[in-house]
Amino acid sequence: MSFLPAEIIKKKRNGEKLSQAEIAFFIDAFHKQQIPDYQMSAWLMAVVLKGMDLQEAADLTQAMLHSGKVLQFAKAKFLPVDKHSTGGVGDKTSLLIAPIVAACGVPVPMIAGRGLGHTGGTLDKLECIPGFNIQLSLEDFQKQVLSVGCAIIGQTPEICPADKRMYAIRDVTATVESLALICGSILSKKIAEGIKGLVLDVKYGSGAFMKTPQAAEELAQWLAQTAAKNGLRCSAFITSMEEPLGRFVGNAIEVLECKSVLSGTPALGFQPEQFSDMTELSLVLSSEMLVLSGRCQSTDEARKLAEEVLASGKAYEQFQKMVTAQNGRWNEFQFPENLKWHTVLTESEGYVAEYNTEAMGLAAVCLGAGRRVTSDLIDPLASIIVHKKLGDPVKKGEVLFSYYASDASKLSSAAAFLRTCSKISLQKQPRPSLIINKFEA
Amino acid sequence: MSFLPAEIIKKKRNGEKLSQAEIAFFIDAFHKQQIPDYQMSAWLMAVVLKGMDLQEAADLTQAMLHSGKVLQFAKAKFLPVDKHSTGGVGDKTSLLIAPIVAACGVPVPMIAGRGLGHTGGTLDKLECIPGFNIQLSLEDFQKQVLSVGCAIIGQTPEICPADKRMYAIRDVTATVESLALICGSILSKKIAEGIKGLVLDVKYGSGAFMKTPQAAEELAQWLAQTAAKNGLRCSAFITSMEEPLGRFVGNAIEVLECKSVLSGTPALGFQPEQFSDMTELSLVLSSEMLVLSGRCQSTDEARKLAEEVLASGKAYEQFQKMVTAQNGRWNEFQFPENLKWHTVLTESEGYVAEYNTEAMGLAAVCLGAGRRVTSDLIDPLASIIVHKKLGDPVKKGEVLFSYYASDASKLSSAAAFLRTCSKISLQKQPRPSLIINKFEA
Repeated sequence: MSFLPAEIIKKKRNGEKLSQAEIAFFIDAFHKQQIPDYQMSAWLMAVVLKGMDLQEAADLTQAMLHSGKVLQFAKAKFLPVDKHSTGGVGDKTSLLIAPIVAACGVPVPMIAGRGLGHTGGTLDKLECIPGFNIQLSLEDFQKQVLSVGCAIIGQTPEICPADKRMYAIRDVTATVESLALICGSILSKKIAEGIKGLVLDVKYGSGAFMKTPQAAEELAQWLAQTAAKNGLRCSAFITSMEEPLGRFVGNAIEVLECKSVLSGTPALGFQPEQFSDMTELSLVLSSEMLVLSGRCQSTDEARKLAEEVLASGKAYEQFQKMVTAQNGRWNEFQFPENLKWHTVLTESEGYVAEYNTEAMGLAAVCLGAGRRVTSDLIDPLASIIVHKKLGDPVKKGEVLFSYYASDASKLSSAAAFLRTCSKISLQKQPRPSLIINKFEA
Repeated sequence: MSFLPAEIIKKKRNGEKLSQAEIAFFIDAFHKQQIPDYQMSAWLMAVVLKGMDLQEAADLTQAMLHSGKVLQFAKAKFLPVDKHSTGGVGDKTSLLIAPIVAACGVPVPMIAGRGLGHTGGTLDKLECIPGFNIQLSLEDFQKQVLSVGCAIIGQTPEICPADKRMYAIRDVTATVESLALICGSILSKKIAEGIKGLVLDVKYGSGAFMKTPQAAEELAQWLAQTAAKNGLRCSAFITSMEEPLGRFVGNAIEVLECKSVLSGTPALGFQPEQFSDMTELSLVLSSEMLVLSGRCQSTDEARKLAEEVLASGKAYEQFQKMVTAQNGRWNEFQFPENLKWHTVLTESEGYVAEYNTEAMGLAAVCLGAGRRVTSDLIDPLASIIVHKKLGDPVKKGEVLFSYYASDASKLSSAAAFLRTCSKISLQKQPRPSLIINKFEA
C-alpha cells in the first residue's frame, strides 16, 4: 500500500493514531531511502510530542524488525530467550546469565551494546578477554548458539538497519525520549535475535536512566506489553540502581568479578559471597528465563537448577566454551594484583546511607572505563572498587572506594566525583530492596 | 555565540522560549549548512506543536532576513511601502496599488509570488503582458524603484535564502501551519525589500486560507505585531473573500480588468464601475500605504489623492512606465474578444446568496489558470467571468458564470465545480462587507 509521507507526518502531528499499514509504509520507505531524513525527524518529533499508543508501538516494532534479518531457531529443544537491562553501574549480569541459562540447555542468542555515558557496556567488558571476537557474522552467531548454547556479539548491519539510522537521527534531534520509540528500538533488535522469551531488568535509582520506581514501572509496562503484542513471552523486573551492582566497576575488573562468582574463588581479596547482590540478580533473571523458555515449570524449580549449574561449575564451563568459540583465550585473561590503587576514605563514622550512583559511573568514565562520545577509547584497567555497600557500618578513615587509571592525569576529576558521591549517616539505614516489583505481560 | 543545535531543539520541544541569540544561531547555522535539514525539520515540528511567542516570531523574522541581502532606499523622499495579501480568488489589487501609490511619489518595491492551489499569483498575471520580465536582478530592481517609482518582480536568490530552504522542508513535513513560522516567512521577505511601511490584507471566507474572521484576525494580529517589533509601520485589514474580487478570474483576463479600471474603458462588455469591489479595496489599501509612507497626513487626504491619480490617468501612465521598464510591450497586450465561452446558468430565480469561492478557484485551476504543483504550466487565457455578485437578483436561466480554456478537455472538471459552487435564495441577502476590520500595530 502507498501513502503520502507528509500526510502520515500530519496525522501524527494532529495527534491521530496511525494504522499498522501507515507505520509499516513509513518505516519501510525510510529504510529504502524513499523518505529523506528530514521527513523522518519531523515525524519523530511529532511522535515524541503527540505520543503513540501500545498498538502503534507494537506496529512500529514490527516495521523496524522487518527492515532487516530475523533469526530462527526452529529446531531448538527449548525456546531461545534473552534478557534486556536498561543499563546501570557495575551491571555485569549478562556475563553470568548467558552461561547459566545455556548450561541448562536453553539457547541464549545475545546481541549486546557498548557503554555510553555513565553506564557500562557488555561488549567493552568481553573485549578485555584476549582475542574475544564480538563481531561474528549473523550466520556464525546463529551456528554458535546452536552448537555451544550461547553467544554474545555486537550489533550487526543485518539486524534492524532502520533502527540504526533512526537512532542516529534521534540522537541529534532531541527525539530520544519517547516510550514508543524506545520500545520500538529495543524490542525490534531483541526479536530479531530469534528469541521467544524476554526478561526485562528495568532499573530505577540514582545510577539508572529512570530515577524513580514509578518511571521505571511505566517503561517496564510499555516494554512488556509491546513485547507481548509482538508474540514474546515477557517478564519484567523493577530493580534498584541506588548503588553499583556488586563491588567492581570498570571493564577487566568486572570480568574478574564474574570469574570469582563463576569459579567460586576470591578476587582482589574479596570472597565470592561479597558479590551477593550481583549474583542474586543474575540468578533471579536466569530463573525467569528458564521458565519462559519452557525448560522449567516453576520459578522454584528454575532457581534450584540455576543455583546448581552455578555451584557445580557447569556455568563456568559454559562461559569458557563461549569464550573459546569466540576466539577468546581465557587462560590469558588476568587482572593485575599489584596495581597502585588510590583511595577515598570515610570522613565520619556511621552507616553508608546513600550513593549518587550516576556520579560513581561518571567517575569511572573520567578514569577511562567509559565513553563520553562513541569514539572515546576504553582503558580496560580503569576501575573503581566499592568497599562498602549501602547500610554497611563504617568507622572514620576506612577505605570507601579504591580507584585506578592507567593514565594518572585522569585521577583528579574522578576523585572529585568519588569524594562527594556518598552520604554517611549516624542512624542505621535499611538497605534498599534489590527487586521491588515483578510482572508478566 | 555558539550553541548545540540539539539543545535548542530540545528546549523548544520542552515548550521553553528561545532567546534571540539561540534563534539567530540556529537559522544562521542552517543557512551555512552547518545544521542539516533533519535537525531543522525536527525543530520546525517542535515549533508547530509547542508554539512561539511574538518576540520569538520577531527574532525569527530578523534571523531569516539576515540570511540574505536587505535593500536600502535611504535617499527616497517618502518611506518605501508595500502590501501583503494572504491570497484569494480574482485578487489583482497589486497591479492597481503599485502604480497608484507610485504615481503619488512613494516608492513601491514589490516582490510577489506565483499562484499555487486555488489562489492566483501576481507574477503569472504580469507574464501575460508580452515581454514582461519578472526576473530582474536585485540591483536592477532597486534602480527601477528609484527611477520609475515601482517594480514588481519574483523572488530572487539573494533575498532570504534561508526561507526558501525552510519552506521547501515545511512543505513536505506538515510544518506549514504555524503562526510564528508564517510570520517569519512572510515578513522577512517583505522587510528585505527595504520597505518601512506595510499594509496587510488578511482575507477570510470561503475563498481564503482563513475560513473565519476570527482566524484571519489572529493571523493579522501576529503579522502586524511581529512587523512592528521589526520596526515596520504596519496596518492590517480583515477583508472578505466570500466571493471573487471583481468579476474576472484567470491571468490575462485579470490584467484586462486592471486595464479597464486604470484606463476607464469597458472590458468584455463590462463597465469599469462593475469592478467596484476590486477598485474600492485597491483604493483603501493604497490610501493606507500613502499614510504609512509619510506622503499624506490622513486617510481622507490619501484617499482623495489616490482617487485623483486613478481618475486622471496618472496611475495608468505609471503602470505603463513600469511595464516598459521591465521590457513589457503594453501595446501588444490584448485579450481576444471572440473566445468561445461556455456558461453556467442559474437554475432558479432569487438572489445570489452564497459562493463557494475556493471551489471557484479550483475550477480556474482545472481550466489551466492555476497550478496543482509548482511545475504545472499556466494557460494565460483560461478564465472565469463572474456575471453575478453576491446579493444580485437573478432570474432562472441567466448566465451566472462564463468560462474558457484553450484546451477543451479541461472544461468538464471545471464545470463540475462551477455548477455546484453557488446558492440562490428567494430572500434578498445582505451583501457581506468588503472590509470588516482595520487596526494598526
